[in-house]
Amino acid sequence: MERIDKVHGTFEKRITDAQKTTVSAAVIRRLPRYHRYLGDLLREGTLRISSAALSKLMNVTASQIRQDLNCFGGFGQQGYGYNVKYLYGKISELLGVNEGFRAVIVGAGNLGKALAATHMFERRGVERIAMFDVDESVVGTRICDLDVYHVDELRDFCQKNGVSIGVLTVPKEAAEEVVATLVEAGVKGIWNFANMELKPPSPDVIVENIHLGDSLMKLCYELKTSAEG
Amino acid sequence: MERIDKVHGTFEKRITDAQKTTVSAAVIRRLPRYHRYLGDLLREGTLRISSAALSKLMNVTASQIRQDLNCFGGFGQQGYGYNVKYLYGKISELLGVNEGFRAVIVGAGNLGKALAATHMFERRGVERIAMFDVDESVVGTRICDLDVYHVDELRDFCQKNGVSIGVLTVPKEAAEEVVATLVEAGVKGIWNFANMELKPPSPDVIVENIHLGDSLMKLCYELKTSAEG
Repeated sequence: MERIDKVHGTFEKRITDAQKTTVSAAVIRRLPRYHRYLGDLLREGTLRISSAALSKLMNVTASQIRQDLNCFGGFGQQGYGYNVKYLYGKISELLGVNEGFRAVIVGAGNLGKALAATHMFERRGVERIAMFDVDESVVGTRICDLDVYHVDELRDFCQKNGVSIGVLTVPKEAAEEVVATLVEAGVKGIWNFANMELKPPSPDVIVENIHLGDSLMKLCYELKTSAEG
Repeated sequence: MERIDKVHGTFEKRITDAQKTTVSAAVIRRLPRYHRYLGDLLREGTLRISSAALSKLMNVTASQIRQDLNCFGGFGQQGYGYNVKYLYGKISELLGVNEGFRAVIVGAGNLGKALAATHMFERRGVERIAMFDVDESVVGTRICDLDVYHVDELRDFCQKNGVSIGVLTVPKEAAEEVVATLVEAGVKGIWNFANMELKPPSPDVIVENIHLGDSLMKLCYELKTSAEG
């Protein structure tokens, strides 16, 4: 889906092609972190920042920062610093933040509630539009301004509302069935907190698995190693 | 801290030394995933598994599996498969799962409650022993068999009980102060869900930052790229 702007069509296309060829997977992986820091700077009202200052803030070498950011066009101006808003906008665009994806949270337990309460979604341009559960005591209520529907309504709701992302916070046992329903309804992205590794149910569905336990284990390993050292 | 077993002392020491030199950081990063799958196999009663079967299950090549697992001793037996329990035990040991680390959860909001309710800790050999909050309506209650104390008691409690890991689910604004208290009390590991990047407050403190938003962003990026392709 190339967006060819009527006026700047050729230029836009050139930029897009350049991005495609020059932004490496390694840089893409680092961009969310830049996005996070630049977003914080913007909210604090910082309009410009030097690579040296950004380096200190992010604990990354200035040369790494210049390398990463020059990859997709080079917004730094010698002695003048980066334009925070412009850079934030460009990274947002590259990462798909402004695509207007809609999400539903399936599972209105503690984790679902915790996710519903964060600013995480809106800061990445993702609109949460509803929650789903099977528990009759929670169906029909509102959590953080989101209506909670019964899972029976999940497929129709997602189809009608063009939902792109399903956030899965259901128990492990219920996960496969919920995913099948989401995929049937045309949902293309699954953010999986169900504590089981979900393989993409079809080639055009993207699955991002969250395994908090792996992170806890990394912490334990480092604690152990540090104590031994 | 070398544990020299009286009988197998020399052998144990040799294994430990061999592990130190041959297990690369890349393998270490992959081990939690092996640990997770092997744990599931054990719970299902599977005692042996071939590298081919493990390969299919984990969606990794069999040669990768052999490479990874031979790194720290090579438990595979040609035509016989891996002993699941032995391998699980060895990986557990290497990762520090059996060190008996104790953890407290600071912040008894939705995320704190969600973490308190998981099996994640016990499966990694970490014992949760208490929760802390400032909200008087929750202090003094019990959540998932854990007593909730006031944050004022955090330092004394951690000192008295030899706590190694502090799980941080407090708001961003409160995080620095809580971390200072934990570190004062001798806590060496911080598992940070406070949605801000925490630098290790001292060189011997290990911080593992969780940024769920970065994962959401990766999902959005892949959704965007997949739609463009």
